Amino acid sequence: MSTASLIRALEDSRSDRAGALARLIAFLSIPSVSTIPELAAEVTRAAEWVASRLRDAGAHSVRVDPTPRHPVVTGKMSATAADAPTVLVYGHYDVQPVDPIELWDSPPFEPSQREGALYARGASDDKGQVLAHLEAAAAYANAGGSPVNIVYVLEGEEEIGSPNLDAWLAAHGDELIADVALISDTAFVARGEPSIVYGLRGLAYMEITAQGPNRDLHSGQFGGAVLNPAGALCRIIAKLQDADGRIMIPGFYDAVRPLSDEERAEFAALPFDGAAFDAATGRAGGFGEPGFAANERIGARPSLDVNGLVSGWIGDGAKTVLPARASAKISMRLVPDQDPDDIARRFEARVKELTPPGLTVEVTSLHGARPAIVDRDTPAMRAAAFALKAGFGKAPVLSREGGSIPVVNTLAAKLGLQTVLMGFGLPDDNLHAPNEKFEIDQYHRGIETIIEFLHAFAEEHTA
Amino acid sequence: MSTASLIRALEDSRSDRAGALARLIAFLSIPSVSTIPELAAEVTRAAEWVASRLRDAGAHSVRVDPTPRHPVVTGKMSATAADAPTVLVYGHYDVQPVDPIELWDSPPFEPSQREGALYARGASDDKGQVLAHLEAAAAYANAGGSPVNIVYVLEGEEEIGSPNLDAWLAAHGDELIADVALISDTAFVARGEPSIVYGLRGLAYMEITAQGPNRDLHSGQFGGAVLNPAGALCRIIAKLQDADGRIMIPGFYDAVRPLSDEERAEFAALPFDGAAFDAATGRAGGFGEPGFAANERIGARPSLDVNGLVSGWIGDGAKTVLPARASAKISMRLVPDQDPDDIARRFEARVKELTPPGLTVEVTSLHGARPAIVDRDTPAMRAAAFALKAGFGKAPVLSREGGSIPVVNTLAAKLGLQTVLMGFGLPDDNLHAPNEKFEIDQYHRGIETIIEFLHAFAEEHTA
Repeated sequence: MSTASLIRALEDSRSDRAGALARLIAFLSIPSVSTIPELAAEVTRAAEWVASRLRDAGAHSVRVDPTPRHPVVTGKMSATAADAPTVLVYGHYDVQPVDPIELWDSPPFEPSQREGALYARGASDDKGQVLAHLEAAAAYANAGGSPVNIVYVLEGEEEIGSPNLDAWLAAHGDELIADVALISDTAFVARGEPSIVYGLRGLAYMEITAQGPNRDLHSGQFGGAVLNPAGALCRIIAKLQDADGRIMIPGFYDAVRPLSDEERAEFAALPFDGAAFDAATGRAGGFGEPGFAANERIGARPSLDVNGLVSGWIGDGAKTVLPARASAKISMRLVPDQDPDDIARRFEARVKELTPPGLTVEVTSLHGARPAIVDRDTPAMRAAAFALKAGFGKAPVLSREGGSIPVVNTLAAKLGLQTVLMGFGLPDDNLHAPNEKFEIDQYHRGIETIIEFLHAFAEEHTA
Repeated sequence: MSTASLIRALEDSRSDRAGALARLIAFLSIPSVSTIPELAAEVTRAAEWVASRLRDAGAHSVRVDPTPRHPVVTGKMSATAADAPTVLVYGHYDVQPVDPIELWDSPPFEPSQREGALYARGASDDKGQVLAHLEAAAAYANAGGSPVNIVYVLEGEEEIGSPNLDAWLAAHGDELIADVALISDTAFVARGEPSIVYGLRGLAYMEITAQGPNRDLHSGQFGGAVLNPAGALCRIIAKLQDADGRIMIPGFYDAVRPLSDEERAEFAALPFDGAAFDAATGRAGGFGEPGFAANERIGARPSLDVNGLVSGWIGDGAKTVLPARASAKISMRLVPDQDPDDIARRFEARVKELTPPGLTVEVTSLHGARPAIVDRDTPAMRAAAFALKAGFGKAPVLSREGGSIPVVNTLAAKLGLQTVLMGFGLPDDNLHAPNEKFEIDQYHRGIETIIEFLHAFAEEHTA
């Protein structure tokens, strides 16, 4: 693989930064919120957009494969050399909902450039990072060809737990033979600190629905003689976690792998963007399990969060209703070696145990993912380290992230693939929150870093 | 006052039951939800409708008086005799919101007749009962004149705590000189058991707004290192009330007047519609303060209810958000001699005390009302007892209700008026809930009972 082709690809990319930005703006304008049934056609429109961009970038075998819900987009780039390795690039073109919409400074699907960043839902998670891959591929196509074979798997259901991805991967295993998987859906640990994520937390996302009286009642006519399901649900939730955040579900911590002294030293040495953390968290950022630093609490310890809570009258002013129902969405982030199914069972058992007479409770598991730890010393990890240093001018740190990317486990289990998590987000990108952004410099350097990675991985392979 | 006029009025009412029902359907079709700002014009439309009906019924001095929010409708009927007493009739033409709309079997503002009842928001609370008064007045007008003077005060802000009524009453005191106030906004203790309510609970309605992080965060990227305001709010609410419903706010019970043995015997003797109670409450109806019967818990003991709860993602499916805010609406029903301002202060102090570091809490009082007990042996109470027996064929019981009608205290304080609470609802009317109804027989007999009351009160007065 010649360095000339790398240089031409980088030059091609640099010469069309305006075009790459315009394409990102077009992509971000499609409201592909996978969880909202009314937007299903928009999710499909985003899939078609991705397929069209893949074709323009020189990919072949491009398809938009329907699934029971949202399609998987796939396509291939062929390497110029016959013995080149294959990289499977996974990403997702669906996005989170935008609520609370009133807290956005600009409309979430009308991308807005401010202070070097592009603000839109999905900018960083994950459309901007997905498109960086397609832009890198197009640059190689314009430069004479790719140094590696690439298989793209771009799904539209990541934000709803990828319910149809496993079946799709199983059905297309023979098209997906690769040497490594590459995912850009993570962030730097701090601005200016390129990072390779080697650990991700798992997830058990539960919903509790609590029914008290048969129907909504007048709180004057009935209050005092009827169990209030909202109050009762609060009493249950209050017993799931103590004031320091320690989770009070019997056996919850049994499978948690303790941090070694060496790992704790690594966490302590990691750069931590305190300013971004403080800006996002305010006074609430002082919270957490005693004896652990903030990045350990996020990267290496399990957590429990109430993600949603609703009952009764939530409009302005007063309504004296004694509600029939109350419900809560509660998710737990898991660490090795916790098992999401086991945790979901323990959660349900504990909630049932805490349920008082007169309350009828249903506990549902909405979403589960295993925690993941990947090998830190492989040809692909070395290529990623080289590429990030080339793209951002600084050697990357190895970090563990608090989020979950369930596909990492699926790719290992179904296709035997190790994954490299080389992402270009920043800690203050406001993922899943109002005013999500992707910094334009991270985008352009991300494209160049992917160009560097593909070259370096081919070199590692032939070395 | 001649009995002939009473008989003619009753005959007039019976001859136009279809008309009275059609007018109620028209009145109920106006969505006069006072708490929703977007419906302010509909509230005014309902006020104009009431004023027009008052004029048609033969009232004079009819006005729709604007207030800073929703108007007060007033008007007068003059007695045929010069020495006749004056009755002040209070009612409200505003209604509660309709949420949860999906639980209604027919649209709340398209009145639907089923099994002898008219289903619509406001049917029983209070439009049906207000209109019964106007129909009774019209019957007397058609029959040659009213046996008493009547002053109508019909407001549009009862369901939001009557914020402008006190000022209106103070400004119009000289137009409101009367011998007694009559309100029909209560229910029978059981089907077939006419009731006069002599006690009402008070109310302290509070809102808690809790702020955790500065903005919504990704629960993977931050979970475990940031205080979750929804979880923290649940822990606060869980400490306000124990599993039996006893309220754990220091000093909350200090001013509660204990029930005497005599009062407890009266409660035990009251008819109790167990079937209606069970149908509404289901298994949740087994709840309450130990040592008290259900009707004591509702009529004579204070209570605390969570009326609303909201935080984070409340749509379908999963969103892994760590919300910035959580809020709760919590109301307490009060009994003699609790003071709503004192209780609001104690509530706020307790919530502040329970607030952990990292959570910022605001506590607001949305609405307050004193509990009320009225004299049980007065000419007006005797007239009401006579009228209910005439209208429904059975002597009424004296009962205490769990709801609040703050105006009872205001009428006593500002105008020196004792109030008679003679209502025609039933315990299963679904006030403030989906499928509110008013039974058509209760409506027609209610009109006749009011006709009887006005005659009987005139007789008591001249006796």
